[in-house]
Amino acid sequence: MAERITPREQDFSQWYLDIIQHAKLADQAPVRGCLVLRPNGYALWEVVQNELNQKFKETGHRNAYFPLFIPESFLNLEKDHVEGFAPQCAVVTHGGGKKLEEALIVRPTSETIINSMYSKWVKSYRDLPVLINQWANVCRWEMRTRPFLRTMEFLWQEGHTCHETEDDARKETLRMLDIYLSFLRDVFAIPVIPGRKTESEKFAGAEETFCVEAMMQDKKALQAATSHYFGQRFAKVFDIKFQDRNSQVQYVYQTSWGISWRILGALIMTHSDDQGLVLPPKAAPTQVVIVPILQKNKDNSAVLEVSQRLKDELSKQFSVILDDRIEHSPGYKFNEYELTGVPLRIEIGPRDLANNLCVLARRDGLKTQVLLDQVGAETGRQLDGLQKDLYAKAYDRLKSHTYVENDYSVFKEKIEAQGGFYQLHWCESRKCEDAVKEETKATIRCIPFAQIREAGRCIVCSSESKGRVVFAKNY
Amino acid sequence: MAERITPREQDFSQWYLDIIQHAKLADQAPVRGCLVLRPNGYALWEVVQNELNQKFKETGHRNAYFPLFIPESFLNLEKDHVEGFAPQCAVVTHGGGKKLEEALIVRPTSETIINSMYSKWVKSYRDLPVLINQWANVCRWEMRTRPFLRTMEFLWQEGHTCHETEDDARKETLRMLDIYLSFLRDVFAIPVIPGRKTESEKFAGAEETFCVEAMMQDKKALQAATSHYFGQRFAKVFDIKFQDRNSQVQYVYQTSWGISWRILGALIMTHSDDQGLVLPPKAAPTQVVIVPILQKNKDNSAVLEVSQRLKDELSKQFSVILDDRIEHSPGYKFNEYELTGVPLRIEIGPRDLANNLCVLARRDGLKTQVLLDQVGAETGRQLDGLQKDLYAKAYDRLKSHTYVENDYSVFKEKIEAQGGFYQLHWCESRKCEDAVKEETKATIRCIPFAQIREAGRCIVCSSESKGRVVFAKNY
Repeated sequence: MAERITPREQDFSQWYLDIIQHAKLADQAPVRGCLVLRPNGYALWEVVQNELNQKFKETGHRNAYFPLFIPESFLNLEKDHVEGFAPQCAVVTHGGGKKLEEALIVRPTSETIINSMYSKWVKSYRDLPVLINQWANVCRWEMRTRPFLRTMEFLWQEGHTCHETEDDARKETLRMLDIYLSFLRDVFAIPVIPGRKTESEKFAGAEETFCVEAMMQDKKALQAATSHYFGQRFAKVFDIKFQDRNSQVQYVYQTSWGISWRILGALIMTHSDDQGLVLPPKAAPTQVVIVPILQKNKDNSAVLEVSQRLKDELSKQFSVILDDRIEHSPGYKFNEYELTGVPLRIEIGPRDLANNLCVLARRDGLKTQVLLDQVGAETGRQLDGLQKDLYAKAYDRLKSHTYVENDYSVFKEKIEAQGGFYQLHWCESRKCEDAVKEETKATIRCIPFAQIREAGRCIVCSSESKGRVVFAKNY
Repeated sequence: MAERITPREQDFSQWYLDIIQHAKLADQAPVRGCLVLRPNGYALWEVVQNELNQKFKETGHRNAYFPLFIPESFLNLEKDHVEGFAPQCAVVTHGGGKKLEEALIVRPTSETIINSMYSKWVKSYRDLPVLINQWANVCRWEMRTRPFLRTMEFLWQEGHTCHETEDDARKETLRMLDIYLSFLRDVFAIPVIPGRKTESEKFAGAEETFCVEAMMQDKKALQAATSHYFGQRFAKVFDIKFQDRNSQVQYVYQTSWGISWRILGALIMTHSDDQGLVLPPKAAPTQVVIVPILQKNKDNSAVLEVSQRLKDELSKQFSVILDDRIEHSPGYKFNEYELTGVPLRIEIGPRDLANNLCVLARRDGLKTQVLLDQVGAETGRQLDGLQKDLYAKAYDRLKSHTYVENDYSVFKEKIEAQGGFYQLHWCESRKCEDAVKEETKATIRCIPFAQIREAGRCIVCSSESKGRVVFAKNY
C-alpha cells in the first residue's frame, strides 16, 4: 500500500490527500464539502479535546452547549459580522413540513446566539467573568473545499467570555492564544509565530484578532488558532450590561477564541513523510505497537509470552497495542503502522529473544537494540526523543525558510520559487497589502509579537514603515 | 431562592422547570424548542460522556463523526424510516446565497448517512465487526417541547454497528442495552425495566427495538435508552456487502443504539426534591462542598486553614470545592448547594474546631458529627450510603407503583388517579394497544425481559394472552 502514497516532491496536494486516505483519518461524505472523520481521525480530535479541556478548566473555563440554529435577524445585528458571515450561511427554511416564518441560520460561529443569552445571565459584577467554552459543529458554505482545512461543516471549540474591564478581557484574549501556542508546541510539536492580524484579516466584528501561524512542509502558512478581542461591540448590540463595583451600569468587555479540526491538517502537513502519517508521541492515540516476529506453523509461545508481558508493563505508562495476528507478515504490519503514524514499534523475534534483546524502531527511522529488562525506561526515552526531534525539525524549517527581504522583485521571485515566510516592511495601508496579495497571492499572516521594530520603507510604495510584518501564501 | 421552587405536590411540571432554572442546568433559547445547556447541565452531560465512552471503548467501540447534513434522497431510501422521520425534519434549502439543487436534511438520526459510508468501507469479513459510535447533535421538529425530554435539537450518542452474523448483531443489541442499564443503575441510581418494544412503538426502520424504562416521581414512565436490531434491512438498501469466510458475498447484520440528554430529565425527576436538585454522588460533577462557618470582621484563619487542609486531602479521592466567600452567609451557601444538588456538605465552625469535629450533611438531610481525622474515610462512607439510598428509594418507588391488574375499568380508574406501571394481559393486536392509548393515554412501554409468562385474557378484548406487558403513561 505504501507505494500508493504520492511523494511530496511530486505533488504535495495529492500526498496530503493520500496520507488522509491511507491512514484512514477521514473520508469524503456524499454531501459536497463535508468530511467524515473516521475513528483514526477522531482519536486525534479526542487528544485535542482532552488536552485543551484540561487547560481550559485549569484556567476557570466551563463547557456549555448553545443551539445550532440562529434566527436570521440575530446575524444582522452587528454590521461587520453579518457582512463577513452572511455569504457563507446554510439556511433552514422549512421545518416539520412547513415553511418557517423566520429562516434559521446553521451557526457559522456562535457570537450572536451566545451573547443573546449572556444579556439574560449577566446582571452584576458578581456574575463576571463569564468563562464559557463550547465544543460544536459549525457550518460555512465554501466553494473550494479541502479535507480538514476548508470544509462546509467542521468541528471546533469556541470560547466566549465577558469581563468587567478592558484589561481583563485583553489579558484573557492573550492567555487563550498562549494556551493554543503551548498546546501546539508541546503536544503537536508544531512551532508557531504568534501575532496580531491586520484590519483586513481580522475576524468579522472583532476589534482585534490574534493568531498563531505555522509553516507547513511546502513552506505555506497555516493559521492554527485565533483569539479575538471584541471590546464592547457585541455587548452594545446585545445589551450585555452589569452593575459594577461602584453601582454604575456598564457594558461588559468580551473575547472569543477557537481552534478547529484544521489543526489535524496542520499536524499532517508538519510531520508526515512519504511512508505515511507521522505523529508526535504526545499527539498519538497509540504510542507504541509491539510486533512479535511470528512464524507460521511453528511454536511462537515464547515470543508471544514476552510480548504480552512487555505490553502489560508498558501499558502502565504508555498507550500500547500488541499485534499478534498470525495471518499477516511482520513486513505487512510494519507498513501498516508506518501508514498510521504509530511513533514507536517494538520488534521481538526468536533470535532477539535468545539474546534477551528486542528492537525499538522510531517512526522516523531510528532503530535501537535494547535489553529486554531496559525496554520500560528506553521506551520513555525514545518517545521523548522523537517528540523533541519532530519539534526541532519543524522549528528548523520555520527558521530557515523565514526571510528578511527589502526588494519587492526579489521577494516576488523567491516566494514564487520556494514559498516561505517573508519579513517585509509595510506602510500599514490596505492598498499595499492588497497589491501584494494581487501580485503574489501572499497575505500578511500577522504582525508578530516579536516584531522586528526598525525604520524602513514599505516594500510596495516606499512610504515610511516602523517595523516588519510576516507575509506568506497560506492555506 | 428555595421558596421559589414550586412543590411537587402542587404542580409537578412546574417543579421540574423550576429545578432546571434554579440549578442553572439549562435555559430556553431564542429559537423555539431549543435549549441552552448551561455549564451546570453540561457538566452532567460530561459525566454521561466519560462514563459511557469508557464502557464503549472497553467493548471495542471507537468514536467517529459523520456529517450533519443528509441528502434528502437518502432518507427516502428506506420506506419505514422516511415515514417515521420525514415529518420531523428541518430542511436546508439555501447555501452560500443560492438555492440548492437537492435539499439537505439536518440529521434526525444518522442511519442513512453512516450506512452510505459503511458500504464503501466494508468489503470482507476481516473488516467486521464495525463498531462505531458518534457523539452529536440531532434535530427533530417537535410541536410541544419540554426541556431535555423533547427539544428540537438535542445532544446524544448514536452507535452504529455491522456484523457477520445475525447472532453477533443480536448479541451486540443486547450488550449495549445492558451497558445503558448498568450506567443508569450504577451511576445515575435509576432502576429501569428492560424489554422489547411492540411493533407500533419500535424505531422506524428497525426489525426490533429494545429499551429501558424508568419511573419518575409522578409515576410516569420515561424511556431512557434504546437499542435497535436492523437485521439486513439497511444493508440491502445501502448495499453493505462483504465476502464471508467461505468467499460468499453476504449482507451485513446491523444495530444502532442511543442515549440522549433526556436522561438528564430522568435524573432530575427521579431524585430531586422541593429544595432543589438531588444528584447521586457518582453522577455529581462536584461531590463535596466544604463550607467553613466564617464570621465577618473576626479572625477566621483557624477555620480556613483546616478547611483548606481538608480540601487538599479529600481532593485526592473526590471532587471537592471549598466555598470561602466571606460576603455570603453559611445559610445562603447551604441553600445554594441544595439547589444545585451537591451530595455532601462539610460544615466547619469555630466551635466544632475546638472539639476537633465537623459536620457532614448529606443532600437528603442526614447529618453526622465526625472527628476531623476521620473525615476522609467517613466522606467515602457517606457518599456510598447516599448513592445506595437514592437507588433504593427509586427502586422502591418502581416496585410499589407497579400493579398487576386484570380488570380494565379498575386499571382505567387507578392509572387516572395515581399513575404507575401496569402489568396487563394483551392479545398482541394493534387494535387493543390503540384502544388503551385512546382511552387512557397509556402505551405499552415494553414487553419486559422478565415477563410474567402466564395464560390470561387480553384486558381489552378478552382474547387469549400468553403473558403480561407493561402499560404506563409516559414522557
